[in-house]
Amino acid sequence: MGDTLKIGVVGVGAIGRTHIDRINNKLTGGKVIGCADYSAEFAKKIADQFGIKAFDSGEALISDPEIDAVVVTTSDPFHEQYVTEAIKAGKHVFCEKPLSPTPEACKRIVDAEMAVGKHLVQVGFMRRYDPGYAQLKKMIDSKKYGAPLVLHCLHRNYDDGGVGWKTSMSVENSMIHEIDVLRWLVGENYVKTDVVFPRSSKHAGAAKDPQIMHLTTESGIYIEVESFIFSHYGYDVRCEVVCEEGTLNLPEPPYAMVRCNDARVTPICHDWSERFPEAYNIEFQNWINASKEDRVDGPTAWDGYVAQITAGCASKARDTQTSVEIHIPEMPEFYKK
Amino acid sequence: MGDTLKIGVVGVGAIGRTHIDRINNKLTGGKVIGCADYSAEFAKKIADQFGIKAFDSGEALISDPEIDAVVVTTSDPFHEQYVTEAIKAGKHVFCEKPLSPTPEACKRIVDAEMAVGKHLVQVGFMRRYDPGYAQLKKMIDSKKYGAPLVLHCLHRNYDDGGVGWKTSMSVENSMIHEIDVLRWLVGENYVKTDVVFPRSSKHAGAAKDPQIMHLTTESGIYIEVESFIFSHYGYDVRCEVVCEEGTLNLPEPPYAMVRCNDARVTPICHDWSERFPEAYNIEFQNWINASKEDRVDGPTAWDGYVAQITAGCASKARDTQTSVEIHIPEMPEFYKK
Amino acid sequence: MGDTLKIGVVGVGAIGRTHIDRINNKLTGGKVIGCADYSAEFAKKIADQFGIKAFDSGEALISDPEIDAVVVTTSDPFHEQYVTEAIKAGKHVFCEKPLSPTPEACKRIVDAEMAVGKHLVQVGFMRRYDPGYAQLKKMIDSKKYGAPLVLHCLHRNYDDGGVGWKTSMSVENSMIHEIDVLRWLVGENYVKTDVVFPRSSKHAGAAKDPQIMHLTTESGIYIEVESFIFSHYGYDVRCEVVCEEGTLNLPEPPYAMVRCNDARVTPICHDWSERFPEAYNIEFQNWINASKEDRVDGPTAWDGYVAQITAGCASKARDTQTSVEIHIPEMPEFYKK
Amino acid sequence: MGDTLKIGVVGVGAIGRTHIDRINNKLTGGKVIGCADYSAEFAKKIADQFGIKAFDSGEALISDPEIDAVVVTTSDPFHEQYVTEAIKAGKHVFCEKPLSPTPEACKRIVDAEMAVGKHLVQVGFMRRYDPGYAQLKKMIDSKKYGAPLVLHCLHRNYDDGGVGWKTSMSVENSMIHEIDVLRWLVGENYVKTDVVFPRSSKHAGAAKDPQIMHLTTESGIYIEVESFIFSHYGYDVRCEVVCEEGTLNLPEPPYAMVRCNDARVTPICHDWSERFPEAYNIEFQNWINASKEDRVDGPTAWDGYVAQITAGCASKARDTQTSVEIHIPEMPEFYKK
Repeated sequence: MGDTLKIGVVGVGAIGRTHIDRINNKLTGGKVIGCADYSAEFAKKIADQFGIKAFDSGEALISDPEIDAVVVTTSDPFHEQYVTEAIKAGKHVFCEKPLSPTPEACKRIVDAEMAVGKHLVQVGFMRRYDPGYAQLKKMIDSKKYGAPLVLHCLHRNYDDGGVGWKTSMSVENSMIHEIDVLRWLVGENYVKTDVVFPRSSKHAGAAKDPQIMHLTTESGIYIEVESFIFSHYGYDVRCEVVCEEGTLNLPEPPYAMVRCNDARVTPICHDWSERFPEAYNIEFQNWINASKEDRVDGPTAWDGYVAQITAGCASKARDTQTSVEIHIPEMPEFYKK
Repeated sequence: MGDTLKIGVVGVGAIGRTHIDRINNKLTGGKVIGCADYSAEFAKKIADQFGIKAFDSGEALISDPEIDAVVVTTSDPFHEQYVTEAIKAGKHVFCEKPLSPTPEACKRIVDAEMAVGKHLVQVGFMRRYDPGYAQLKKMIDSKKYGAPLVLHCLHRNYDDGGVGWKTSMSVENSMIHEIDVLRWLVGENYVKTDVVFPRSSKHAGAAKDPQIMHLTTESGIYIEVESFIFSHYGYDVRCEVVCEEGTLNLPEPPYAMVRCNDARVTPICHDWSERFPEAYNIEFQNWINASKEDRVDGPTAWDGYVAQITAGCASKARDTQTSVEIHIPEMPEFYKK
Repeated sequence: MGDTLKIGVVGVGAIGRTHIDRINNKLTGGKVIGCADYSAEFAKKIADQFGIKAFDSGEALISDPEIDAVVVTTSDPFHEQYVTEAIKAGKHVFCEKPLSPTPEACKRIVDAEMAVGKHLVQVGFMRRYDPGYAQLKKMIDSKKYGAPLVLHCLHRNYDDGGVGWKTSMSVENSMIHEIDVLRWLVGENYVKTDVVFPRSSKHAGAAKDPQIMHLTTESGIYIEVESFIFSHYGYDVRCEVVCEEGTLNLPEPPYAMVRCNDARVTPICHDWSERFPEAYNIEFQNWINASKEDRVDGPTAWDGYVAQITAGCASKARDTQTSVEIHIPEMPEFYKK
Repeated sequence: MGDTLKIGVVGVGAIGRTHIDRINNKLTGGKVIGCADYSAEFAKKIADQFGIKAFDSGEALISDPEIDAVVVTTSDPFHEQYVTEAIKAGKHVFCEKPLSPTPEACKRIVDAEMAVGKHLVQVGFMRRYDPGYAQLKKMIDSKKYGAPLVLHCLHRNYDDGGVGWKTSMSVENSMIHEIDVLRWLVGENYVKTDVVFPRSSKHAGAAKDPQIMHLTTESGIYIEVESFIFSHYGYDVRCEVVCEEGTLNLPEPPYAMVRCNDARVTPICHDWSERFPEAYNIEFQNWINASKEDRVDGPTAWDGYVAQITAGCASKARDTQTSVEIHIPEMPEFYKK
């Protein structure tokens, strides 16, 4: 591969287009040169907009020798198909979260990657690249404040943005971010989970909202994650790590404070797009850099698999309103390298 | 009774002496004129220090016609005896929390008070008088932000101050404050509780610490209270009330911020005595004022009873590591007045 | 004098009545038993409201043997007359700021007090009793952060409350508080001052507002005080002390923070009465306690005199738009005790 | 010019190398392909490190047809020579601040640019690109809070980093940033300035430090800028804009807050490199993008000229300890486009 990583994007919905724009206009070292979509016609339209090439299918894109690396941003059930295709082609592939909706499908991807014997897959858990979480990670790893014991986390949206929220989505689409980033933060798998339904907001319609997911890790760290989709005040993500000799708080975005109308007023993001812009940029820049060095330096297929096992247990806990044990298989040697 | 409420204090340990000093040197309208103690000799010594009269026994103090009102600050198991004595004497009585260690004893006090047909007992849940909680209460009651749905609370000490902490004390001596003040804040009884043991701090010795108590109210409000006795960073009490259209945060004490050593540094209280000094003053001033008007204007014997029922259930939940239902009897008409 | 300091109040306008209420209903150890006013009829009316005695004149009140101590809250030009009368009667007297509108009148009071040879006068610079300033004072005196070099201060009102603000009042009625409290904070007299007129707010009418007063102390500490009467956002007082190894910030009042409408919102006081309530209580409690011990433990007549000299120079600097030197006489031995 | 802006850097000291790294490894659309330096040998060494071409001289680099645009990061006195050369070559040129140390030299650059009749020069006042200042600018321009009246600004370093600070450098090397960014923020030239010497820190050696510069704008906005090089606590930049109906505060960087040792602790940057990293990236990305569109979209040569006139007056005010009037010539039509 040359100086520039030549990238193909499979799936050009909103998120796919955002990534094309990001790679081609904000980052360095990579360039999206082609795209494909379920609708070949739509792929053509988007390709024209960005001045790139349209492929007839994801498979055609992935197998094209001009394509160095692949971004998969199709709808979730199609992730497996294209990620597996990329693995077979020996190409680096960035797959939006979730790696696949079911743990079984994730496991098949893991197996495929191990079969080719080379790290190729990165999953789009972009919170790990947020400078705020990175600060927490560094402080935890320093052991300066002792071991983490409790995590108080929350993840609130103003509303669902018209998506038509269902009770099951809070774990699967929203708290899945916490499932990955908190495991990475404390460096432990989960062993137990339950999901509580507090009194629901009048704004939540038929959905149970807020919900609170509890997770216990291998060493007993207890994690509370509140998901509140219809908070009706803003997009707010917080995390307090309670250690043995101090607590650590995720910083809030740096907004100018205004004093007016008898109050000090500091903005809160209205939606997710305002909260983690840097994280997405860092994530993709890292992926481009690592791909060019033929490495994976981010959440792996294994991480995607573990997240889906955990989310599956949390969903079961939610549906049955019981505490559910989580059994994470031993991580293969392959992923320890 | 004259211009000044003449007060007798039964039990002159540290907390009793603090209250004598407070009433006689900081507040107005009342005066501690006598004291009694388990040890009559000790009572004499303290009486001399404050220039007040020593009584041979709590009973003698309570029955003395010169005494208008009584403060009970004996050790917990003796509360019942002296509170009941004061009720029989028809005198206003302020009893430190808990009203009594067992719900049964609390119930007997309630019955005694109802038997004389007059409100006489106030329990020392002083958090209700903290200006910060008062702000939260006012905002919740305004309904400006919709109904409360979730409360995230925590109560941390630097350490146990050499008391020799036991696992059972976190509910019974520490979170008992939250049990009362949160019920008052949302205006609902609890229906369910469980207590979780996260990974324990290495500083906690044999005690399970931190602990997390969950409470569910009648309307489904879900409450999380973390108690962390050996936090090894400071005395910290927080409360976030999550409502349908906004969240409310208990203010922190107003300390000067220093910028030094590459950091912005704002003190946190080291121990409880620094955190709520105003609350104690307001509490006792209110009690003096109300007693002089022959009213009770604070946490009643009923509130003390309900708190002990709840704490009993939480203790059972903790010991059995199960979720326990809480059954609060219907409040008698007598206490609705 | 008996157990209770029996106090007479001369001048029963709004501020005088506030102090009667404070002393009789919130504090301990003192009691306002009589009042007088320019209008004897009005004095009678107010006396009836508070259940105290009306005197025909300030002189009659001051000379009455039943009166132990005097509070002077008349309009400013009459302060001298009643404070002097109290000094002659050998009674402790609390005089609202300013001690007197002119340095000359203040000097006559100082001379009268020195003539009787006893400390009797306290001036109502209540900022010194605010717990926030007290924290700053303690930190400066600790020398932990090195010597103070610069102070950035501001003092803003929402508007003038209908008083009809004039350009001269910003120094004389508003920043006079900073003149006293900052001198006390750094423990040095001022040597130079100038007053700047920034662009005026459209809300300020004919008055120059905001104004910025600069003060230089004996050791060269440079102080900037912004006075902004028509800030149209709230009552806001701030102070940052820049030392050689750190900066210290006056804390803001502890208000609950609300997250709503895409913002974190913390109230700011709307007017002065909300900002320093504790300071007034502490100030008067201290005055009562000290008077009963026949001491003055607060801003003295000398402090009142120095403040008026300084304010006079700042007024001249403002009117002439030049830098004006401040010459403070050597403090007499009498006031060093 | 092709897809990529081919850039040459003249002057490869620390700041020049930082920019090469930034452009080649963090940004998109431009590439540094060559460099030159006063020492041709040193240029060769650096060129090898970055895998780019070394030119024998700045002139050779600028005139080379392969070079599309130029970055000038020589020592200050050489800026004029290379910027003028680039103008003559009709190439876009980014010049680090100051455009030139004297207003006269800046004026010659302005004249040269007007002579070729095309906007080519951008000056490295990177504060304008800081997202925090951008928020302030947007709020001021919205007129939502009325006109700005006063600005309180400060700019502190931990120490001088071993540079050997002299009294003159505070205006010329440090507050020059405020001179540009505040003029841009309020959209007005300055008409008057003075510089005050508060008591100096014991850490400042022979230099006068801190210093306070006052600036008055055309409409009377009054600006206070404290420069404190040896603050001995951190790198701290603040700005409060006082408007007619509210005040606006520059946000501080988003650092994780730690609660430990009886305090809430939030880091402050230790040096400048940590404070504005994003601003530099945005600045250069914008310059690359604009240069490719043959536009200047940032601080112009005129802005550089006005900044140096202002700094010259402030230096005179400092040296003479008087207030100095600032006369900014009418901006030519050429720069209004």
